[in-house]
Amino acid sequence: MNRLVIKNATILPMNKRDAVIQGDIEIIDGVIRSVGPALKCREEDEVLDAKNMIALPSFVNAHTHLAMVLMRNYKDSLPSLSAWLGEIWPIEDKLIEEDIYQASRLGVAELIKSGCTCFADMYFSQWQTVRAAKEGGIRASIGQTIFGDEQEARDRVENNLPRIVDEIASSDKISINIAPHAIYTCTSGAIKVAREAANTLDVPLHIHLAETKQEVSDSIKSFGLSPTRYLDSIGAFDGKTFCAHSVFLEDEEIEILVKNSASIVHNPSSNCKLASGIAPIAKYKDMGANIALGTDGASSNNNLSILKEATLASMISSVSTMLPSSLMPYDLLYMATMGGARALGLDGKIGSIEVNKEADILLFNMDKVNTNPINDPYSAILFSADKSNIDTLLCKGRKVLERGELLTLDESELIEKTNKQWNDILRR
Amino acid sequence: MNRLVIKNATILPMNKRDAVIQGDIEIIDGVIRSVGPALKCREEDEVLDAKNMIALPSFVNAHTHLAMVLMRNYKDSLPSLSAWLGEIWPIEDKLIEEDIYQASRLGVAELIKSGCTCFADMYFSQWQTVRAAKEGGIRASIGQTIFGDEQEARDRVENNLPRIVDEIASSDKISINIAPHAIYTCTSGAIKVAREAANTLDVPLHIHLAETKQEVSDSIKSFGLSPTRYLDSIGAFDGKTFCAHSVFLEDEEIEILVKNSASIVHNPSSNCKLASGIAPIAKYKDMGANIALGTDGASSNNNLSILKEATLASMISSVSTMLPSSLMPYDLLYMATMGGARALGLDGKIGSIEVNKEADILLFNMDKVNTNPINDPYSAILFSADKSNIDTLLCKGRKVLERGELLTLDESELIEKTNKQWNDILRR
Repeated sequence: MNRLVIKNATILPMNKRDAVIQGDIEIIDGVIRSVGPALKCREEDEVLDAKNMIALPSFVNAHTHLAMVLMRNYKDSLPSLSAWLGEIWPIEDKLIEEDIYQASRLGVAELIKSGCTCFADMYFSQWQTVRAAKEGGIRASIGQTIFGDEQEARDRVENNLPRIVDEIASSDKISINIAPHAIYTCTSGAIKVAREAANTLDVPLHIHLAETKQEVSDSIKSFGLSPTRYLDSIGAFDGKTFCAHSVFLEDEEIEILVKNSASIVHNPSSNCKLASGIAPIAKYKDMGANIALGTDGASSNNNLSILKEATLASMISSVSTMLPSSLMPYDLLYMATMGGARALGLDGKIGSIEVNKEADILLFNMDKVNTNPINDPYSAILFSADKSNIDTLLCKGRKVLERGELLTLDESELIEKTNKQWNDILRR
Repeated sequence: MNRLVIKNATILPMNKRDAVIQGDIEIIDGVIRSVGPALKCREEDEVLDAKNMIALPSFVNAHTHLAMVLMRNYKDSLPSLSAWLGEIWPIEDKLIEEDIYQASRLGVAELIKSGCTCFADMYFSQWQTVRAAKEGGIRASIGQTIFGDEQEARDRVENNLPRIVDEIASSDKISINIAPHAIYTCTSGAIKVAREAANTLDVPLHIHLAETKQEVSDSIKSFGLSPTRYLDSIGAFDGKTFCAHSVFLEDEEIEILVKNSASIVHNPSSNCKLASGIAPIAKYKDMGANIALGTDGASSNNNLSILKEATLASMISSVSTMLPSSLMPYDLLYMATMGGARALGLDGKIGSIEVNKEADILLFNMDKVNTNPINDPYSAILFSADKSNIDTLLCKGRKVLERGELLTLDESELIEKTNKQWNDILRR
């Protein structure tokens, strides 16, 4: 039996608005068994002194393309999403499995260093990303990506999905999502195949939705319906679903998502950087939608920090609604934790610090000049803290980061191997 | 003679668009004497190996209220700037000089840790902030703040300004600005006194300008003129000037600032967080204005990182113009360095890495997972790097930060003393 007690923390449990618990967290075999002041320790307990630290559920990155760290800072500042994809897609055509593997490992390390133990991915050769997540010791919801028509979708589900299923068999932390890329890259037949596969496995469907004005106007031209209405008309929401971006939704479309318990993954950096638009997430939230946060790929961000997304989401919500209280610090940190867990269907296991949840816990060392005085712990995390405050990270009770240093992966090796792969790709 | 050679760096000199120099920087007695590939070293040289590092001119924070770190995360998310000031001003009425001193020291430490060696301040009892800057070993343009009417302005210039002048006499790094707070807190007589004092000392005038729609409409109501036109009509721009915020400027007002060589200090976090608005800085720049960056006080930010300001400025410029190339990474890093130096009238001394400039240099350690592959060094600094990459900082050739650790101040002591002062204030 493995026992760990986190002592003397300021705990933001994220299961109750603005709650703050001063005290300890007892973890037995990776599961939280008690939370409260001055828990008694036994002689055999490992004790982690968290004085001057704030404990949060670790972050969930609910939409990324992890292996795109390869294309970080590559062809930046092009005039539109479509111009940028025109540069990225030819590179992607050259990728081999070793590229995906090495880049995913570097991505996993970057997630860990930024306080995240769970990510939802959408990319190619995803069994390689599973390998990387297992090495890093963190959770993932791995997307079987779908492109093209019904036949291509069936081929991918029949040929590729079993490889992911095989690779995750030995892990208790990795699950699957079925990820039809978008309505402009998949036919309705392909999306229906994806929905069917998701329901068969009882896993979520993961799709890009209403990312740009162009997507909306093309959808109306092609189908006579906006993207959300079109997807609803073909049954795409008949089961667990999370939708990335979702920048342009009318009230009726938000209602469709809410009625179907589909989550929205807000990607503020990518939406700003590519000039897609500002998703009105305060309104989505007020209408009852569950909101998660995602970084999108590092190629349009250009990093994988959910804390940065939460801060930016707050900034652009305040200035676009002209209301600083449109989203409170608690709301943003909820999106970064519980909102993500709910989107991925993992809220029974993770997303909050409470008894019987698995111990995915992030400790911020607040004993730094940028976080003093603290005054309000929610504001302090959202607006004052940065990666230099991220100290310790647990995934299912196991330390994957300690004093800001990776415990499961070797940073220098990752950098060397990923750069080698990238240089190879450019020469192919 | 003190000699230091920075070897093997990737240098972004910021004196030429998108320039990148692979090589070394020779510094003699705090002044840059050569920049180029493979400079020869002498036996007596101190050598700083900057392999895998990017060298930039250190950041300039061109508008802050340093001692407001005290009120960090205090009364966040109120509905407007005026509601928030209503909470802050009663606290400020209680401040004593020791508060300003201790808080300024913590603020100086935070600036150093975020890569900044020069700040422009506007606050009270500013001789205490001078003491803090001298202890930290960094530069400052210290504002003699002006409030009220002509008589009050004369009293402040006569009684307080000499105390600042005395305190800076022993420093070669600290200069002065004259800082009438804003048109809604100073009479025209007070602003004229400020302008006269600034011109007498040959230093810049530093003012909040057009921060909110309310300020603009009140100005039109009171003076029949928008804030910039009103200030122009009373001669406020007849000399060096930098204007904080400047969110709401019409084309004619931008032309007034450009004609008078007045700089604009963009404060994106504060403007977003307080829901003031998004300043259209790409347009200001296109019309020929010099733009600097500032954090504003930590109480409306809630930190002092210029790198975060630069990233946010890029994000909101792209999404508000719907043009990802409205400002390129070079433009933002220029604002964070040379733009700031120009605003403060220090561009003859600092702001770029070139021969005969003083050596205010910031080294980013890029050998981290979040900054690989680098691909484009300007993008990598702006979008991928964070405080965990900030390694070494020089001010006039002297190291004030090394491997991310403060060399001139004691972080634990600052935290303890600042919290003590803050708790005292709350009890007063």
